[in-house]
Amino acid sequence: MLAVAVVGGTGYTGVELLRLLVAHPQVDLKYITSRSESGKQVADMFPNLRGFTDICFSEPALETLAECDIVFFATPNGTAMKMVPELVARGARVIDLAADFRLKDAEVWKHWYGMEHACADVLAEAVYGLPEMNRASIKSARVVANPGCYPTAVTLGFLPLVENALIDDQHLIADAKSGVSGAGRGASVATLQAESAENFKPYAVNGHRHLPEIRQTLASVASHEVGLTFVPHLVPMIRGIEASLYATLKSDVTAEDLHKLYVDRYADEPFVDVLPEGTMPETRTVKGANNCRISVFIPQQGDTVVVSSVIDNLVKGAAGQAIQNMNIMFGFDESTGLNQVALLP
Amino acid sequence: MLAVAVVGGTGYTGVELLRLLVAHPQVDLKYITSRSESGKQVADMFPNLRGFTDICFSEPALETLAECDIVFFATPNGTAMKMVPELVARGARVIDLAADFRLKDAEVWKHWYGMEHACADVLAEAVYGLPEMNRASIKSARVVANPGCYPTAVTLGFLPLVENALIDDQHLIADAKSGVSGAGRGASVATLQAESAENFKPYAVNGHRHLPEIRQTLASVASHEVGLTFVPHLVPMIRGIEASLYATLKSDVTAEDLHKLYVDRYADEPFVDVLPEGTMPETRTVKGANNCRISVFIPQQGDTVVVSSVIDNLVKGAAGQAIQNMNIMFGFDESTGLNQVALLP
Amino acid sequence: MLAVAVVGGTGYTGVELLRLLVAHPQVDLKYITSRSESGKQVADMFPNLRGFTDICFSEPALETLAECDIVFFATPNGTAMKMVPELVARGARVIDLAADFRLKDAEVWKHWYGMEHACADVLAEAVYGLPEMNRASIKSARVVANPGCYPTAVTLGFLPLVENALIDDQHLIADAKSGVSGAGRGASVATLQAESAENFKPYAVNGHRHLPEIRQTLASVASHEVGLTFVPHLVPMIRGIEASLYATLKSDVTAEDLHKLYVDRYADEPFVDVLPEGTMPETRTVKGANNCRISVFIPQQGDTVVVSSVIDNLVKGAAGQAIQNMNIMFGFDESTGLNQVALLP
Amino acid sequence: MLAVAVVGGTGYTGVELLRLLVAHPQVDLKYITSRSESGKQVADMFPNLRGFTDICFSEPALETLAECDIVFFATPNGTAMKMVPELVARGARVIDLAADFRLKDAEVWKHWYGMEHACADVLAEAVYGLPEMNRASIKSARVVANPGCYPTAVTLGFLPLVENALIDDQHLIADAKSGVSGAGRGASVATLQAESAENFKPYAVNGHRHLPEIRQTLASVASHEVGLTFVPHLVPMIRGIEASLYATLKSDVTAEDLHKLYVDRYADEPFVDVLPEGTMPETRTVKGANNCRISVFIPQQGDTVVVSSVIDNLVKGAAGQAIQNMNIMFGFDESTGLNQVALLP
Repeated sequence: MLAVAVVGGTGYTGVELLRLLVAHPQVDLKYITSRSESGKQVADMFPNLRGFTDICFSEPALETLAECDIVFFATPNGTAMKMVPELVARGARVIDLAADFRLKDAEVWKHWYGMEHACADVLAEAVYGLPEMNRASIKSARVVANPGCYPTAVTLGFLPLVENALIDDQHLIADAKSGVSGAGRGASVATLQAESAENFKPYAVNGHRHLPEIRQTLASVASHEVGLTFVPHLVPMIRGIEASLYATLKSDVTAEDLHKLYVDRYADEPFVDVLPEGTMPETRTVKGANNCRISVFIPQQGDTVVVSSVIDNLVKGAAGQAIQNMNIMFGFDESTGLNQVALLP
Repeated sequence: MLAVAVVGGTGYTGVELLRLLVAHPQVDLKYITSRSESGKQVADMFPNLRGFTDICFSEPALETLAECDIVFFATPNGTAMKMVPELVARGARVIDLAADFRLKDAEVWKHWYGMEHACADVLAEAVYGLPEMNRASIKSARVVANPGCYPTAVTLGFLPLVENALIDDQHLIADAKSGVSGAGRGASVATLQAESAENFKPYAVNGHRHLPEIRQTLASVASHEVGLTFVPHLVPMIRGIEASLYATLKSDVTAEDLHKLYVDRYADEPFVDVLPEGTMPETRTVKGANNCRISVFIPQQGDTVVVSSVIDNLVKGAAGQAIQNMNIMFGFDESTGLNQVALLP
Repeated sequence: MLAVAVVGGTGYTGVELLRLLVAHPQVDLKYITSRSESGKQVADMFPNLRGFTDICFSEPALETLAECDIVFFATPNGTAMKMVPELVARGARVIDLAADFRLKDAEVWKHWYGMEHACADVLAEAVYGLPEMNRASIKSARVVANPGCYPTAVTLGFLPLVENALIDDQHLIADAKSGVSGAGRGASVATLQAESAENFKPYAVNGHRHLPEIRQTLASVASHEVGLTFVPHLVPMIRGIEASLYATLKSDVTAEDLHKLYVDRYADEPFVDVLPEGTMPETRTVKGANNCRISVFIPQQGDTVVVSSVIDNLVKGAAGQAIQNMNIMFGFDESTGLNQVALLP
Repeated sequence: MLAVAVVGGTGYTGVELLRLLVAHPQVDLKYITSRSESGKQVADMFPNLRGFTDICFSEPALETLAECDIVFFATPNGTAMKMVPELVARGARVIDLAADFRLKDAEVWKHWYGMEHACADVLAEAVYGLPEMNRASIKSARVVANPGCYPTAVTLGFLPLVENALIDDQHLIADAKSGVSGAGRGASVATLQAESAENFKPYAVNGHRHLPEIRQTLASVASHEVGLTFVPHLVPMIRGIEASLYATLKSDVTAEDLHKLYVDRYADEPFVDVLPEGTMPETRTVKGANNCRISVFIPQQGDTVVVSSVIDNLVKGAAGQAIQNMNIMFGFDESTGLNQVALLP
């Protein structure tokens, strides 16, 4: 059994981690920390956990966290980077669900996140936790940067095309849509139901923090900078991301060819499901499940390829992928504790 | 391993049964029937099941169904009663998720369901599958009538009060609210999202089929007829039932007394959770889970008791309760395959 | 043209007042105040008003407000009572959409609202602005207390029964449900879409501020105290209230009699619509409109009467009723500016 | 007063037309036809109209329709084309809200709509009713083809760019999203709330009927064929379309230049609102209103332009635009009866 701690458990990625951790057969949940809720039963805040755990929120303490085999950070950006160096020094391994270790370049990180990075050296060693690209290095990583929700959906969608240099990678377009849980559990006017329900809107058109993250990953695959326009939108639903991706094909290729390329690329991936040709992904088919479902199209046999990729932003886009990374890091079967069937309807 | 068949698997109770059955460690899913979809992969219709089962819909055939240990009926009312006598004669056991075996009196059944009952003798032996009342007889039953969704929420809410004769049982009021999945997966104008979203309404105020079912159960507990006004309402959400129950107390009793009564009554029940005093039930705390959560109040220390009871209509109100009944019938731990944490948010 | 001011225009009742005021042919909107947003264009905060008004939020100033014919308060409870005495002294008339003038007894008010009342004398003269009861006194009132949203729906539903002493008024039950806009536009976790969508729950079962308001009104009609259990619930939709009302009939009366009683009672009311017998009210039929639609039932010809009453909480339950009161106070046709057709679907 | 008829009034465009027509000061609504509902009061089917009209559905009859000044068709595709030649011959003018007269080429129409066109000659004379392009010809038209909902949002968004030849018009991308009312009021499984709520999906990626319509319009502006990838998506809300449009800029131009271009292009348009730079359109700001709101962006000062355009699919995307066309055809002020403020929240 792994001794596991979660730092910052009062948000949606936190409670989703708990939902998955209490059902994981190899996990002994030792600590879940929250400064503001210290002493309160977790199940009092999240009554879906009544009967599954008696654990209480506690103050984060380096001493006790360091005794754990693995520490998850489900904290606001900028928190993990202050504690991780010491934790790693004491032998704990870390998966950060925030953005502290996602960008390799501390200057770029500072530009997008508005603060100095506290441990550029750890940044260098941290592994970007997208198993479909980095499984081997995740296995031995001390620090895993769990990918952002949009980057997971967009990167898995573009990956086979970029790996095979099939498209003009200077004009990639990612039109992405997310449910409101992506905005987090903080009190806010913009995501009140009376504001966000019965509404659809783009946001952050001029620049979203997930843009440099996606660019970095695709550039590492292409071996050169890529051009990407990324426009996120807010969908009046709780969970789910759909990314519609557009690119111009550089050479003649049929929809059938592309479908086969995707099927082959992800054939051994337990959590990427390439749908039969002509089938449209729907976010509800992954609600509560650690799957990414993908389809690829060439409308009207033109030179524009369209990829649609769906995930549950809180599962494959956050907590589920974190568990998947943990399974890899500790040598468990990658699917352990992740076999939930999506809740449909 | 149990050999299991599901008759009629294209509706919401059907797909929910499948979600639970594919995860049940003692179940070997042999058949899932649908006349209209015969030959089609179940996972093509319900893509959340992709990767969990390769089973195809097949024509319902008495021969093959009778070979199974247990046959679930997730069919429209009036279907099961035509097949059950023969199945039982051949040794299969049956759980009917429709209403065919819920009412003891064939005349009353005819009045509410508009057709002659096809097997009044089986009606007599069928056990009403509410484990919290009938666990012992469910264990040995050949035919279990799985309770309706509203009756599950309302009955569990009233039970301790009626068992202890604490209330005027001639003027019970059940104001119940259900998500739209309760209306089923059939094409219909009234539950189009453009009709039922952003709307709230009562329906069937003058008489709903679940009324005689609740009355029958409460009368059997009270040992006399009860008076009940039952008003269902449609809530713009997918899953969940909340029932607010009102009755006049016959004697002096405090809210604390009542809370203790409920806690004691359900202390050994794995799927009924009496909340701490002052806590309000919310349907989302049981979404996807086989729980009923209940609170009891005496507002302003008056003589009116208010009980609020929540379930997921598709789980404790249908498929989950059916699995619970199966577990009881075959001597498994009652919680086997039913430990899903509710999906929150 | 009336010179009109709105104090506190950044909440939902505020923006709804603006929607109706900009379309009212007799209104010259002079001021809309907000301390926090002073100087900002109203249409920048509420872009639905782009093209309809260029007005900016301004600091509330007694001098300028007092020049207006009518001042609406759409402020938090406890704000209006501090400004109203002076405004009235200077000749302005006031409609308060908050609760400051709804309860006649300053002690009761203090108990429920947790502060001393600032002007008990104005409390005495203020008229409760339910036109269907108090039209004559509204006409000449200097201060109108615009009713709460739940009280509007519940009171109009019970009124004919209480006026005619047809029911046991010591055990009235009001099971009420409201969309989330009723919770206001303040940042809050509980009404984030990720929390309140796909959820249904009761709240404030042990006592809601609208309880004493309804009791006061019904008691004034009955000429004695009434007993009322009032349980509000939160519905996952933006607008709308439905109240299901239950009472025991004291004498033999048919559903047909009751229907006629309701039709007659409201025959001359422009904004109360008694539906044909057997028809269920739906909140969407009043979305954006100043109507209350009501049905009355006697299920199974028993002795329990069921009334269902629907309104849009922001219109007939707030801003629309306020305009209706203004029309009465200034001698306009009562429907002026209130002829919007509900938005369906 | 105009004598007005609506053929086919039982769908969402039909009831929306009625909502607007009953409030139009120049309209005398003579007939509303429906074969299936003939004899039924319209307000019985659409209770939001109670009190606004007593009209009943009637059988469509050429005789009586021809007496009207204007006949709206809110019928399924393929219906209007059978009646319009005779109506026009008798002197009535027609606005078709379906697709019968939208495509100029009868062969293309046949390809996309799967039937022979019944009156290719009328097709030739019909005017595409987008006032922002064709106001002059609409004025004198006998037959107006009211644009599709997606084409309205997409065309108004691309128009200034194509008119000024600023973009590579061979690789236009329109990622469009619509609320479920766009799917109509017919009984269907796919748009049941339990299916479409809490879900987001693309559909018709390989070809939607609105694709040739948009292409035809943009080609007429560009004076050559354009290349367009159009991907519609279904949003879990009732009303609203957002279209995110992407194109590669052919020459250096700043975001400020483009914003000015859009502002100037639509300066005199009563129903197109170019938002201030940096402001994101939201569908809720046009809910129930005849507006199109547009923003234009050049993210990261690159060579990709992003336009976001929102409408209410039932108003500016259907019934409102039809009234706007009627106003133009009969010389009324273009905004007559169309000054509704969007319902927010």
